[in-house]
Amino acid sequence: MTLEKLFAPGSVAVIGASRTPGKVGYDILKNLVESGFGGPIVPVNPAGGEILGQKVYKRLADYDQTVDLVVIVLPSQLVLEAAREAVAKGAGGVVVISAGFKEVGDEGRKREKELADIVRRGGARMLGPNCLGLINTATHLNASFAGRMPEPGSIAVFSQSGALCTAMLDMAAQRHLGLSKLVSIGNKADITEVDLLRALADDEDTSVIVGYLEDISSGDHFVKAAERACLKKPVILLKSGTTAAGRKAAASHTGVLAGAETAYGAAFKRSGVCRADTFDALFDYATALDMQPLPRGKRVLIITNAGGPGTMAADAVEKIGLEVAVLDRNTTTALRARLPASASVGNPVDVLGDADPDRYVAALEAAQEDESVDAILVLLTPQAMTKPVETARAIAASLDGSKPVLASFMGGKDVLPGRQELAAAGLPDYESPERAVSALKAMYDYNVWRRRPPRQVTRYPVNRRRVERIISRRQRTGQLQLSEVKSKDILKAYGFHIMDGSLAGSVNEAIEIARFIGFPVAMKIVSPNIIHKTDLGGVRLGLSSAQEVEDAYDLMMLRISKQVPDAVIEGVYVEKMADPGLEVIIGMTRDPQFGPMLMFGLGGIFVEVMKDVTFHLAPITREEAVQMLKSTRSYEMLKGKRGRKEVDIDAIAGSLQRISQLTTDFPQIIELDINPLIVGEIGTVPTAADARMTLAPAKNIPSPR
Amino acid sequence: MTLEKLFAPGSVAVIGASRTPGKVGYDILKNLVESGFGGPIVPVNPAGGEILGQKVYKRLADYDQTVDLVVIVLPSQLVLEAAREAVAKGAGGVVVISAGFKEVGDEGRKREKELADIVRRGGARMLGPNCLGLINTATHLNASFAGRMPEPGSIAVFSQSGALCTAMLDMAAQRHLGLSKLVSIGNKADITEVDLLRALADDEDTSVIVGYLEDISSGDHFVKAAERACLKKPVILLKSGTTAAGRKAAASHTGVLAGAETAYGAAFKRSGVCRADTFDALFDYATALDMQPLPRGKRVLIITNAGGPGTMAADAVEKIGLEVAVLDRNTTTALRARLPASASVGNPVDVLGDADPDRYVAALEAAQEDESVDAILVLLTPQAMTKPVETARAIAASLDGSKPVLASFMGGKDVLPGRQELAAAGLPDYESPERAVSALKAMYDYNVWRRRPPRQVTRYPVNRRRVERIISRRQRTGQLQLSEVKSKDILKAYGFHIMDGSLAGSVNEAIEIARFIGFPVAMKIVSPNIIHKTDLGGVRLGLSSAQEVEDAYDLMMLRISKQVPDAVIEGVYVEKMADPGLEVIIGMTRDPQFGPMLMFGLGGIFVEVMKDVTFHLAPITREEAVQMLKSTRSYEMLKGKRGRKEVDIDAIAGSLQRISQLTTDFPQIIELDINPLIVGEIGTVPTAADARMTLAPAKNIPSPR
Repeated sequence: MTLEKLFAPGSVAVIGASRTPGKVGYDILKNLVESGFGGPIVPVNPAGGEILGQKVYKRLADYDQTVDLVVIVLPSQLVLEAAREAVAKGAGGVVVISAGFKEVGDEGRKREKELADIVRRGGARMLGPNCLGLINTATHLNASFAGRMPEPGSIAVFSQSGALCTAMLDMAAQRHLGLSKLVSIGNKADITEVDLLRALADDEDTSVIVGYLEDISSGDHFVKAAERACLKKPVILLKSGTTAAGRKAAASHTGVLAGAETAYGAAFKRSGVCRADTFDALFDYATALDMQPLPRGKRVLIITNAGGPGTMAADAVEKIGLEVAVLDRNTTTALRARLPASASVGNPVDVLGDADPDRYVAALEAAQEDESVDAILVLLTPQAMTKPVETARAIAASLDGSKPVLASFMGGKDVLPGRQELAAAGLPDYESPERAVSALKAMYDYNVWRRRPPRQVTRYPVNRRRVERIISRRQRTGQLQLSEVKSKDILKAYGFHIMDGSLAGSVNEAIEIARFIGFPVAMKIVSPNIIHKTDLGGVRLGLSSAQEVEDAYDLMMLRISKQVPDAVIEGVYVEKMADPGLEVIIGMTRDPQFGPMLMFGLGGIFVEVMKDVTFHLAPITREEAVQMLKSTRSYEMLKGKRGRKEVDIDAIAGSLQRISQLTTDFPQIIELDINPLIVGEIGTVPTAADARMTLAPAKNIPSPR
Repeated sequence: MTLEKLFAPGSVAVIGASRTPGKVGYDILKNLVESGFGGPIVPVNPAGGEILGQKVYKRLADYDQTVDLVVIVLPSQLVLEAAREAVAKGAGGVVVISAGFKEVGDEGRKREKELADIVRRGGARMLGPNCLGLINTATHLNASFAGRMPEPGSIAVFSQSGALCTAMLDMAAQRHLGLSKLVSIGNKADITEVDLLRALADDEDTSVIVGYLEDISSGDHFVKAAERACLKKPVILLKSGTTAAGRKAAASHTGVLAGAETAYGAAFKRSGVCRADTFDALFDYATALDMQPLPRGKRVLIITNAGGPGTMAADAVEKIGLEVAVLDRNTTTALRARLPASASVGNPVDVLGDADPDRYVAALEAAQEDESVDAILVLLTPQAMTKPVETARAIAASLDGSKPVLASFMGGKDVLPGRQELAAAGLPDYESPERAVSALKAMYDYNVWRRRPPRQVTRYPVNRRRVERIISRRQRTGQLQLSEVKSKDILKAYGFHIMDGSLAGSVNEAIEIARFIGFPVAMKIVSPNIIHKTDLGGVRLGLSSAQEVEDAYDLMMLRISKQVPDAVIEGVYVEKMADPGLEVIIGMTRDPQFGPMLMFGLGGIFVEVMKDVTFHLAPITREEAVQMLKSTRSYEMLKGKRGRKEVDIDAIAGSLQRISQLTTDFPQIIELDINPLIVGEIGTVPTAADARMTLAPAKNIPSPR
């Protein structure tokens, strides 16, 4: 682990140790002493003396050995000096418990920056400030002021909220869950979620990572670290808080449609993170992923001692997108032989209200052997003959580890001893069938992500130089809204098909161009001051004669001059009409954290009324692009509907990949819409019929991903 | 209560009482004796003697007094005779615990029917067979073999699954919830959920009704009984099981789009039932509704001792459709005076990690006084200085009952004593903020339903006789699929606007009709053998000259004769084209349980691709019809979009009300589509441009609702 000195220090000092119970400086020392930490513990307090049987040093410098980890519990004004002492003493890890930094305003923010600099220059890593500390059960280290030491186990927990740290610790205690580490990351001045994802991914004591986050420090690093971690072990995150900042002013459809949480959703999906939507779900999922193997597929068998709960569970399985398994004939035969005649051997398998542990075992054994079952859900209700404890023991003893088995012992007081037995035996147990099914779904989704094909991003041959020239010229002149014509120039350089067309400066020129490229044509106003051309009557389609072109030109000029008298008109773009086809919209908006987010949706009402769009982080693979199309509600339209033939889905995926390449190559592009992209039947090339881009100001170019 | 003798008997007999612990006949007697029931208990067993200190009678007849309630615990073959003895003895209530009836096949079904007849003829009411029995805490009656007697309280529970009865009883015990009644309704041979809804609505000991159902015996009675109950107290139901039976063969769009659970959803919505989607939710909602007043609005204030959980709760509030309250300026001033300077006095109100009970009380008192707060959510995480028990007590003591207060003390072991304190004080507490917010939403929705304006169904003047004649003729001849022309005749009789048109038997006749009614016209094939006219080229629109009519007619005949050579062609319907407008679809499909279900959706892709439709039980009020429109995702389209003006929403609501009246008047109509109904701007009359109906066979007319 890269955070070795924090998690496995040889010695620990507490600067600000106190002799007053109830003070944080006392609680931390007490936790350190009582957790059974093996190395020297060095309390520091100007008063000296002895606390909890440990000799107190007046200054850290007075201790004659080096110290690996230094915990600082002082008023914020004194923290910087203490940090200097810590690094002077050779500490590799510093934990700053004290508050009074970034969270209290500008002065605190400055102090926090200084603190981080001191620690970094000293070659150490720092947790906090404004945190609860950390716990490592493997090294018996409790360098926190949490109220309890967790049981050892393999779930690692980190949290941006110290309060949730304690709540999770308390919940783990109640559920008898063992933890490997607990880390309160506080203000994240040095160590962030990215460092922890990296360290915990490599931590052999940890099999599941659970985290609570309110923001993410670096989107790019986060995605990379999370993806790397998810390849090794499941990562479950609860992300709260909505930050709509900076999105309101979007000029593109794509920008407007990207909600505040869209980027986080896309980042989690990309990197394989299992997102918990509720506090309950964090440990519901963690327990299952920690204790049980992943399901190979989505077919669930339900074993129950009552019909009602079985039906409820089957409802939940179908609602969440898993399947009720159809048992193999051999299994039903085996079940019939081992269960009473009136038992139901379908799915749910009903072992009846008077079921003893043996019947549960019979059903479980048969289900474990059945190749058409991927996961098993065992339900128990407390009836007259029910023996929750014995049943729990018998079930636990019959697990062969071949597929996940989850339980829901429903009820309260009477089933509690059975539930505790399950927990002790490593069998995840839930208060309701629905929660067990949600956990199964999380396991299934994680396995699907794990087994996805290797990501391979296509690189198309493009004319990158041409785009560079256009962009740098525009950034120099400050014309950051690209017109349709300029946007299409860029798209053309990246392999998009654009209809023939040219800019006309007069009505005669327009007619001439139309005759040259051939009717029917479209005409669109070109002006840096006009973004929403259609709204102002600046777009005319399907003009099929010189007369129509002339009429349209004159009318357009008349209208525009009335409505936007100050607009600088560069001319009118005359373009050959594209063949009719299905109109889709593809776009990109750049998230401040996660970089380019691609969007796909069907055009017209699907986008405008139904908001039926999907997002994905760039760069994107072909499979991911196709998945984007499939995850819209209107996907059916692409497959042919209402008398229209199937459109070329691969061609749309290709267009998304090209936009992915363009916006990854050019961080200067901050928004882009192709609306519509007109898509034809299989084998045809889509046409970018209208386009719009926004560039970042020259000085403010986001760094490339 | 109408089930007086069941719930408050003067005396109870147990036929089949047993002296063997573990047997149901022993458990029931034991429960009766130990629950403290005040009247005589009469065990009956041919062996005689004494059990649990009670004299055993060899036959019920040997007991010389009358008996109010008789519990039967015998093998199913002996139950009928015992039931006869019970009614002979004057019993008003019979509880049949024994299984071996409807659930075991035809013979059992026959036996069950006979049993019900015996009881009814004897003037008694029966619970079961195949049930767990019943409990009434108010009369200290435990006539069940459940493992425990609940604490007295005001939540009544009934369940179609005995196993869920015991699970709910067990869960109530763990949550320290008191129950008024627990009723296992088993096979529902006599007493059904309808009887219980009626009885529990009138039961003064019950303030909330909780139920689990797998099916409903009589949709119509259910809706009436549930609505009546919901006007008095909240009813929370969990309905499991999906019965897609009988829907697959639907000929109408409406029939196809009505999912298996659509009717239950519509019935619950109509009658004010709060539907729990999970087992957890049943008691989550019941606790809140039982213990706290209803919120007047949707504005929620969050009080927390940590930022993270506060943000999570605010996220949940917005996601579920409630609002984060904006505090009155007086409140923030008051809070600033009573809380530390660094506390946040926005919403969430953050009383800080070291909050003592006083700070919670300060925040709570201010929030209770603020008119811009409708509900309060109190969050607590276990931090170093946190006192869960004292905080719980202080919060409970400050409640003024003016608005609902819910809590989530997050964590496990450390907060448990605090949670128990809350439960004892009648303050609902949840493991996570999200679950608390769901419960608040249930309370809010129930209050909205309670405060809705009185239902008033409009009766339009219609030509009912004309419809009667058409339908009875068709039922006589067995032509149950009504053509467009006949369907429109019926619609016209119920006040729909239909374009002028007439049936043509030849091409010349078609031209003549077109000239008479005026171009442009539509032409549609009329044949009892052709339902999907469009698919076979049997519809041509917008024909604007005699030549076009002639061409269309000839082509139609040519195509149809090739594709459906055996079709009987009645002619071609020539109709004036409706003015263009927005196309919507309205329809009806008749649910076997709940009768006519009305559907609304926007036409075309909205229905076909997006399945964006809503259902409502007929008869429908104007408000309900408007609500149907509003609850589609595409409602925005009706308000004007993409250059179109707002359409006449009242006119669509009126059309739905007319269909409601038609299908309530005529149970013979089992399916109906008006697709499209063309709707114009405000002040215009919509046109039923195409329609289709299916009648029930004459002998199989569903009874009117």
